[in-house]
Amino acid sequence: MNLDEYLKSRRALVDATIDANLPPPGTPPAVIHEAMRYAVLGGGKRIRPILAIAAAEACGADAKTLVKPFAALELIHTYSLVHDDLPALDNDDLRRGRKTTHVVFGEAMGILTGDALLTEAFSWLASPIEGVDAARQVRAIAEVARAVDSTGMLGGQVADMEGTSSGGTLEALVFIHRNKTGKLLTASVVLGGLLAGASDDQLAALRRYGEATGLAFQIVDDLLDIEESAATLGKTAGKDVEQGKLTYPALLGVEAARAEAGRLLAEAVANADADIISGPVNYLAAIARYICERRS
Amino acid sequence: MNLDEYLKSRRALVDATIDANLPPPGTPPAVIHEAMRYAVLGGGKRIRPILAIAAAEACGADAKTLVKPFAALELIHTYSLVHDDLPALDNDDLRRGRKTTHVVFGEAMGILTGDALLTEAFSWLASPIEGVDAARQVRAIAEVARAVDSTGMLGGQVADMEGTSSGGTLEALVFIHRNKTGKLLTASVVLGGLLAGASDDQLAALRRYGEATGLAFQIVDDLLDIEESAATLGKTAGKDVEQGKLTYPALLGVEAARAEAGRLLAEAVANADADIISGPVNYLAAIARYICERRS
Repeated sequence: MNLDEYLKSRRALVDATIDANLPPPGTPPAVIHEAMRYAVLGGGKRIRPILAIAAAEACGADAKTLVKPFAALELIHTYSLVHDDLPALDNDDLRRGRKTTHVVFGEAMGILTGDALLTEAFSWLASPIEGVDAARQVRAIAEVARAVDSTGMLGGQVADMEGTSSGGTLEALVFIHRNKTGKLLTASVVLGGLLAGASDDQLAALRRYGEATGLAFQIVDDLLDIEESAATLGKTAGKDVEQGKLTYPALLGVEAARAEAGRLLAEAVANADADIISGPVNYLAAIARYICERRS
Repeated sequence: MNLDEYLKSRRALVDATIDANLPPPGTPPAVIHEAMRYAVLGGGKRIRPILAIAAAEACGADAKTLVKPFAALELIHTYSLVHDDLPALDNDDLRRGRKTTHVVFGEAMGILTGDALLTEAFSWLASPIEGVDAARQVRAIAEVARAVDSTGMLGGQVADMEGTSSGGTLEALVFIHRNKTGKLLTASVVLGGLLAGASDDQLAALRRYGEATGLAFQIVDDLLDIEESAATLGKTAGKDVEQGKLTYPALLGVEAARAEAGRLLAEAVANADADIISGPVNYLAAIARYICERRS
């Protein structure tokens, strides 16, 4: 199976799992369930659940029974987008080429829909999982919660907002990137390993892979924001620059930012291909390359 | 120990636990940790964690080691208040006699602070708990998540918003009350029993106690909104009526609403005093009475 087929098949699994596990359309109150589905089923690469699946498979597990907790990662990612897009935050009207949730359902529903997706995510993470030790499941829930708390993803979001007004430094930028994007991506990889029963050594390698991939992912995102047009990206492009946000290319220059992404990619690949990561299906290195080389 | 002393001592335990477990002041980014502390440490009766403590003690457990996961209930309650108070929702400037979080820290921080409190709650619920079986802990996390999801507390909030514009029926009102307030209160009691190792029969009695107490709590809240002045309640009183919100006294009349609260109180007391709830320290019935008889 080549990478495209792998991503396509795993994405289909994730999409079907999200659709099957969200409250069915019409569940009262109908409007919030419509809004949740609108927000999360409107496309997206599902890169976080796919990273979890790939990590679980790389550790030798059959990931099929683990997709529901992995799909929770996409709910969390989507909640963060729905709230980031709100008028009081980034005030974005477009996302993935469609109107943002608060534009369609109103600002109050935008807030509550994000809340509902975050809550649903923890419900899925705490659902019974066949063949997984409960102590490991608790550890996995804590891992994900810490990755997106006020010292993780939310902390990165706050620092990003402050950076917009203050100008900022390279140190601030690294803090933002590691937290805003890096920690959830890392937790996705670690979650895959944890539920697959990975050893501590395997988990450590997966964590290093996730951190390198996560930072590279954000640098590439910054580069794309500069390079791509609104038509290609499906969101208002060049907005980071327009809003004076801290970005790698803005602080280091485009070439140095590209070089740093390359260095991180090599680190990710080294950890993905470590001897201890020995499952027969290992797409981790290929996914890191895919993330760093994407152009749209 | 009389009820006042009991509530005071358990509240002090909850407050100390919240203070000790939130990220310390100054943790970067400092502003969100300041806002989280402002929101959650600004007073409040801590009725949800105290219900969990009381339920655990009524089942014979020493609740001291369980206070951190129980305090998570207060983080969730506070997150819901912080988001409800936002301009796009209830647009309240005052809460517990102080400026609301978004008034002090801005609307964006109001949104993110609520998000951070909800996330922190699941982090606390998934922290290691001495002497608690991991399978039970997973079940407890799922119980709390479902109580506050889009079919629980958030669903009640959405239905409440819709009720404001549509006028509404008794059926809609019961849906709102059971979900918006009842489910988290019930989950608090059940959480106490779960982490205390309660039997299925005990859990069923605790659930019935929680449901009756939760609905009574909300009816009394509605009655207070009508009866009390802004000075006594520390929030803008009479606002439910002003906004045309569905309430029990508005639909049934004040006397019928009082009678219904009384009926529910009797149901709560019967379950709290059931033979199977046999711990030496049992304040559950007293707390239900306290909730239904409070005047401010």
